[in-house]
Amino acid sequence: MPTNAPSRAIRSDGTRYDVVGIGNSLVDVIAQADDSFIHREALTKGSMTLIDTDRALHLYKALGSAVEMSGGSAANTVCGVSSFGGRAAYIGKVSADDLGEVFGHDLRAVGVHFAPGEHMDGMPTGRCIIVVTPDAQRTMNTYLGVSSYLCPTDVDERVVAVGRVLYMEGYLFDRDDAKQAFRHAAQVAHRAGRQVSLTLSDSFCVDRHRDDFRALVEDEVDILFGNEHELMSLYELDSFEAAVAAVRRDSALAVITRGPQGAAIITADEIVDVAAEEVGHVLDTTGAGDLFAAGFLFGLTNGYSLAECGRLGSIAAAEVISHVGPRPLVELRTLIPWG
Amino acid sequence: MPTNAPSRAIRSDGTRYDVVGIGNSLVDVIAQADDSFIHREALTKGSMTLIDTDRALHLYKALGSAVEMSGGSAANTVCGVSSFGGRAAYIGKVSADDLGEVFGHDLRAVGVHFAPGEHMDGMPTGRCIIVVTPDAQRTMNTYLGVSSYLCPTDVDERVVAVGRVLYMEGYLFDRDDAKQAFRHAAQVAHRAGRQVSLTLSDSFCVDRHRDDFRALVEDEVDILFGNEHELMSLYELDSFEAAVAAVRRDSALAVITRGPQGAAIITADEIVDVAAEEVGHVLDTTGAGDLFAAGFLFGLTNGYSLAECGRLGSIAAAEVISHVGPRPLVELRTLIPWG
Repeated sequence: MPTNAPSRAIRSDGTRYDVVGIGNSLVDVIAQADDSFIHREALTKGSMTLIDTDRALHLYKALGSAVEMSGGSAANTVCGVSSFGGRAAYIGKVSADDLGEVFGHDLRAVGVHFAPGEHMDGMPTGRCIIVVTPDAQRTMNTYLGVSSYLCPTDVDERVVAVGRVLYMEGYLFDRDDAKQAFRHAAQVAHRAGRQVSLTLSDSFCVDRHRDDFRALVEDEVDILFGNEHELMSLYELDSFEAAVAAVRRDSALAVITRGPQGAAIITADEIVDVAAEEVGHVLDTTGAGDLFAAGFLFGLTNGYSLAECGRLGSIAAAEVISHVGPRPLVELRTLIPWG
Repeated sequence: MPTNAPSRAIRSDGTRYDVVGIGNSLVDVIAQADDSFIHREALTKGSMTLIDTDRALHLYKALGSAVEMSGGSAANTVCGVSSFGGRAAYIGKVSADDLGEVFGHDLRAVGVHFAPGEHMDGMPTGRCIIVVTPDAQRTMNTYLGVSSYLCPTDVDERVVAVGRVLYMEGYLFDRDDAKQAFRHAAQVAHRAGRQVSLTLSDSFCVDRHRDDFRALVEDEVDILFGNEHELMSLYELDSFEAAVAAVRRDSALAVITRGPQGAAIITADEIVDVAAEEVGHVLDTTGAGDLFAAGFLFGLTNGYSLAECGRLGSIAAAEVISHVGPRPLVELRTLIPWG
């Protein structure tokens, strides 16, 4: 049942949402497989690869029985924000098929306002075939479908203008239309006096679009999310310290996760180190970065200190990697360590 | 990956399959909810209720985020047979939509031969909205969609004729077409010298179709599956012992599950009591009966004693109730206690 229904009343700063996410709207198709499958299908473990229809059909056929649940990086993040008790909205494109219905339901069910883009005939809802290996790593194969056709007119400006932070996933950069939609959304947000954040999504994605990412981080991004590999790839630097120095010049705030080492929150003045939470048994790392961002953004938009924001990020990431699936199974608000 | 690919070579008795299942082809939509939801929506905990489109839309909307995975009672059973290393086929009706694709994939992925009925335009794949409460009980709300339109011409006679045991779910009785399809399949099986089995599915289903069930059990059913409540409902008797005496007159073999008390295997000459397997933590009872039948039928068609068949049933049921979802997550063949 929709247990999360935060008030949508307009706050004193004119906002209705803490976080407005824009991303690829994907339903995850999750199947277990062993390392020999990864090898046989020439997959790169832990990465996200874009695939076409034929490859999607082939991989799906080669895999064992699967479970379907809503995913999408930014969508996972806004669900996490809502689960903490924050106010969240999501903009993305699905089709009028079963999977599109599932995707919309799962957002609304946790109290996220869903502003879908326009349907396109004959273009199915995107899906991400996730192969989970016994080491809990996930290897993602994304058939974008209609999701990547998000264009500027799909961005509901009224929604973006009333969100404290706009949150965009780098994966959207894989199509020009969507890239333009992002620039447009960022401008709308800035004109309304809101903050703009971006997550780099994965190192191969950064590789594919390094120049565009760099320009954006310099010009439009107030808060940058990513992991250490993505950050080093962005600046083509071999050392984390050098990459930290570089991002300090470009972005007011950077939130960089470091796997079991936790995370670093980087501003012009300080670096706040965040420890990773203890996890009994890591079952599936899908969604770890998305949920770290959720905790951080919930904290940031609700007046917590940077160290507290980081702690909330770690708590949310720890919850999501302890089970299969990219979204929290418990209400994250119940895990906030201080009342 | 399809790890189960038992040989389909024709055996000396002319069979290609150990078990051929016929049932409602449903994708389960599984969501957690508490008892207040059950109360508010006037649901009967632990039962299966047939719902129409409007009610399906209402319930789905009222529920929290969900997970989709293939279900269907007889389909769960044949997947279990295959997971034990048995040879299985399935006959059922889906649509050419996302959920229909998911359903077919998940059968083939575990090595089950899928003989789908003909598509029908504009009729979606059936789905079962399953509400799992904190006590691990499941309350099922089934929108049958195209699945219940299974008719005699959808039954692939070549498949039925080469299966050692035909296995049908009582749920199919909820539409006349499907009821006729079942009679037809039973006749084809008997003409080919095969055995016919039926599962009573649930006590409300028995209530709805008591006379038809009684006639069938007398005339066509060689092996009857059910739980103690369904059996007592079938004969309208208040005592288990009296119902046992009644079923002995009608059916050569009856396999009656009794929840935590295990199961009773009833023949004309003996009653074999089967203990329930220990389960650390019961998470979701969906599929318990289906998987008990899977273990039993795998054993029976592969030369095991009745006591051993019961043990295999208990082992499979214990596996499936220890996690969310109606199908095994491990290869059941690895759980066979003797080599």
